[in-house]
Amino acid sequence: MTTTGNHLIAGQWQRASTPHFSSVNPRTRGQGEVIFADANTEEINTAVEKAALAFAETRLYSAERLAEFLDAAAREIEALGDELLTTCDAETALGLPRLTGERGRTTNQLWAFASHLREGSYVEAIIDTALPDRQPAPRPDIRRMLIPIGPVAVFAPNNFPLAFGVAGGDASSAFAAGCPVIAKGHPSHPATSELVARAIQKAVDTCGFPAGFFSLLQGKSIHVGQSLVKHPQLAAVGFTGSFRGGRAIVETAAARPRPIPVYAEMGSINPVIILPDAAASRHQALVKGVVDSVTLGSGQFCTNPGLFLMIESPETAQFIHNVADAMQAQAPHILLNEDVERQLQKGMEKIAQKDTVTVLTRAQSGHEDSFCFASSVIQTTAENFLADPDLREEHFGPVTLFVLCANLDEMQHLIQQLDGTLTATIHASDSELDTVGHLLLLLREKAGRLLLNGFPTGVEVVHAMVHGGPYPVTSIPNSTSVGVTAIQRFLRPVAFQNMPDALLAAALKNANPLGIWRVVNNKHTADSVK
Amino acid sequence: MTTTGNHLIAGQWQRASTPHFSSVNPRTRGQGEVIFADANTEEINTAVEKAALAFAETRLYSAERLAEFLDAAAREIEALGDELLTTCDAETALGLPRLTGERGRTTNQLWAFASHLREGSYVEAIIDTALPDRQPAPRPDIRRMLIPIGPVAVFAPNNFPLAFGVAGGDASSAFAAGCPVIAKGHPSHPATSELVARAIQKAVDTCGFPAGFFSLLQGKSIHVGQSLVKHPQLAAVGFTGSFRGGRAIVETAAARPRPIPVYAEMGSINPVIILPDAAASRHQALVKGVVDSVTLGSGQFCTNPGLFLMIESPETAQFIHNVADAMQAQAPHILLNEDVERQLQKGMEKIAQKDTVTVLTRAQSGHEDSFCFASSVIQTTAENFLADPDLREEHFGPVTLFVLCANLDEMQHLIQQLDGTLTATIHASDSELDTVGHLLLLLREKAGRLLLNGFPTGVEVVHAMVHGGPYPVTSIPNSTSVGVTAIQRFLRPVAFQNMPDALLAAALKNANPLGIWRVVNNKHTADSVK
Repeated sequence: MTTTGNHLIAGQWQRASTPHFSSVNPRTRGQGEVIFADANTEEINTAVEKAALAFAETRLYSAERLAEFLDAAAREIEALGDELLTTCDAETALGLPRLTGERGRTTNQLWAFASHLREGSYVEAIIDTALPDRQPAPRPDIRRMLIPIGPVAVFAPNNFPLAFGVAGGDASSAFAAGCPVIAKGHPSHPATSELVARAIQKAVDTCGFPAGFFSLLQGKSIHVGQSLVKHPQLAAVGFTGSFRGGRAIVETAAARPRPIPVYAEMGSINPVIILPDAAASRHQALVKGVVDSVTLGSGQFCTNPGLFLMIESPETAQFIHNVADAMQAQAPHILLNEDVERQLQKGMEKIAQKDTVTVLTRAQSGHEDSFCFASSVIQTTAENFLADPDLREEHFGPVTLFVLCANLDEMQHLIQQLDGTLTATIHASDSELDTVGHLLLLLREKAGRLLLNGFPTGVEVVHAMVHGGPYPVTSIPNSTSVGVTAIQRFLRPVAFQNMPDALLAAALKNANPLGIWRVVNNKHTADSVK
Repeated sequence: MTTTGNHLIAGQWQRASTPHFSSVNPRTRGQGEVIFADANTEEINTAVEKAALAFAETRLYSAERLAEFLDAAAREIEALGDELLTTCDAETALGLPRLTGERGRTTNQLWAFASHLREGSYVEAIIDTALPDRQPAPRPDIRRMLIPIGPVAVFAPNNFPLAFGVAGGDASSAFAAGCPVIAKGHPSHPATSELVARAIQKAVDTCGFPAGFFSLLQGKSIHVGQSLVKHPQLAAVGFTGSFRGGRAIVETAAARPRPIPVYAEMGSINPVIILPDAAASRHQALVKGVVDSVTLGSGQFCTNPGLFLMIESPETAQFIHNVADAMQAQAPHILLNEDVERQLQKGMEKIAQKDTVTVLTRAQSGHEDSFCFASSVIQTTAENFLADPDLREEHFGPVTLFVLCANLDEMQHLIQQLDGTLTATIHASDSELDTVGHLLLLLREKAGRLLLNGFPTGVEVVHAMVHGGPYPVTSIPNSTSVGVTAIQRFLRPVAFQNMPDALLAAALKNANPLGIWRVVNNKHTADSVK
């Protein structure tokens, strides 16, 4: 398949602006052959307008029809075969094993939503039947369900080119809701985005969906995203990326004449607490676990643990020393792009200058031709951590900070000062479960997911998953961007009062032809309405 | 009971600023005896700080304990007896029958949430059990539920002094979620707010809740609300009121260092379509229904029908003529306050100057000593309506606009141009149900509730109710402020990974001790986890 460098605008591959950027191979700093362009205003407008036209049809599609599309999209992504993996690897240096796994997660997400649609209860149907004899006035029949919200813009991040790419978690949950997607590809892997867009285009064709159901806009300039978010016919935004980028999109959306919701998943520090008994009894396994989790994917995970909290002691010092040694022994990690490298260098230079912080790893050389950074361990005290906001900043890469707390009280105090985070983890032995209980009560106010004796990297795509949390990790705290409940972001409730059965959607009809779970007169049931 | 003019700050009745405003009896323009003050910064800060302290406890309360509080609050509101009704009537002129009904709705809301809590499934528990043998890696046990979001500020509107007052829909859904409430009373009925606050304070005491679970701040200056929304420990806002007020609060919340969600329910135009056969076959009943709905509560309802769409014909002209005659025959309606009167006068003066609009009712005198306005009917064509944004503005009072469409096509075109609205209604005969089907597909993109052969005024407090809709009627389109699902606004999901049963909340324990409906390994069930 030949990559063209074009945008996909509602079924048409095209571009009008002068091409000016290409991907860069992180291993060689070599430019990709294909040159891409920023989508211009007309292309952006056409994509959204065609999405709005498509929505007039797809909003009424049955769950089964939408599920067939998701199945087809997954099949077409698989059918891209090795070309997708090698293209993506050349653009991201994430490696074929990881990308094979990530492709599996991407198709699993699509299938999970297809299965969720077929089960059907996601429309959250609630039925309160009429009470014609109620005094002083009869009660009308009222039935409520969720319907799709409208065209959704999806901003894909640099770090999950497939699973959060242009057909990743945000896009697939919007598709599942029946909402057309205008995807803004990340400029770090445009060829990957183009290949995936071809797969989605095929699924659109195969399933007879309107071409405007999916568009891909390429672009390196922030103006592309800004114009997209300002389009009056856009209904919502899914964003995954940096705090700075997310906040800019949130502010633009809020300043629209008609503001729209932006579901932004931004940076996260993901604190991990290691309690003394756990560190002692599982010393080796925990050291290995910490090193593996911090450096997985070169540390470029939303759920990368950037902060470890431990109680000060000689054993803790030894533990951290062993982590630092293991990190030191690694070759520098290849990074996604030059920007990630520059931000890491800048962040670590700032930290290294502080006399409140000890850098436990030494600079290393290697991979001279690559974007790379050496695994780094830094250390400070709880007191210094609390006094210096710089120390809370996320380092997007294989870097982590150990904070030594004088005692459990100080650790609890520190936890209460933390910002929102995607995850919070505790490692504890069985004898420490009481302490775990106390800590969980503090941590659950800060995080979307709490883990015991595990590592936050690796996000299961299951119904119960929450990938979200209080600001600043998301812009809307009561949502998730992973797991089937992510679909709720792109649905809204509508009530129908006094409608004859013939005019009701299948989900609300008396006979319950979809066989879904509903709440009928305050009772959960899959029965028909008598 | 003596009204003091104080604020209730976490159990303490107090005030520091100079009192400067009182309610005004709309019937006499006479000042109320008690003078109220704007809450100052210290009082606002204390209220939020005490709420945050209270939250540390109430967030962990069982659903049963929260339900007992809601029951007690309803009992204490009833125990205020006639004094509440007469005080409220003197401040609002809504009349004792209406206020008796509204008090019933207020206590019903509290009971409905209590019942919803006791049923318990509102925490939306989802459980995916571990798959220890999964390849290539075991799947951990992950369990998700909703938890309360934190202290909530509630802004009460002028038009529902009880049902959307300081213990109304927004407050009761926050209480139900386990969230402390800092209520900002509307300056138009401060004595009513104080009485209700006394009832809530008693419920807080009786149930042994921390005093910070409820505070009432009085104030006429916008600075009170602005300071409240800026407080760093606030987690969310429920607002019911004008578009201007709502948008200001939304913007303030978005500009915070840590933005928080604002659930604002603002103005709404509530279009009603009357199809020709319905107008012909139910002429008299419909004329009466229209007049009653437009003038109910002096037209001061969020769901007041401000726009009627009909197909132009001699019969339609007669229908509108009869509506105008019936409106003309009414005495002018007493309004809530001077501001409502002034806005209505201003709005109607602007409209009356337009040569694209016909005012079908004549000015009337009466109630010289009162804030009042005569029922008014205005008329224009679809073409003029679409050309003039002024005609879409809500008139908060007994005023409605008939828009004549040349044919159904023009009507459909007009519907597509409408802004978001709380409700949309169609009146049709059985022979017109096909047309209804087509119109519903357009209207459902605009509204939170769709009605057939009914009137939007009168909002049933049932599980299926949706009182919300696309911007500008709400700031967050996938929410409702009436009905038990309103509780979702003040909850957020958290996932627990690999937790021993002992550390899980009751809703997530294997044994399902609460007997609630859960989704376990993708199946809806009330069973325990094997």
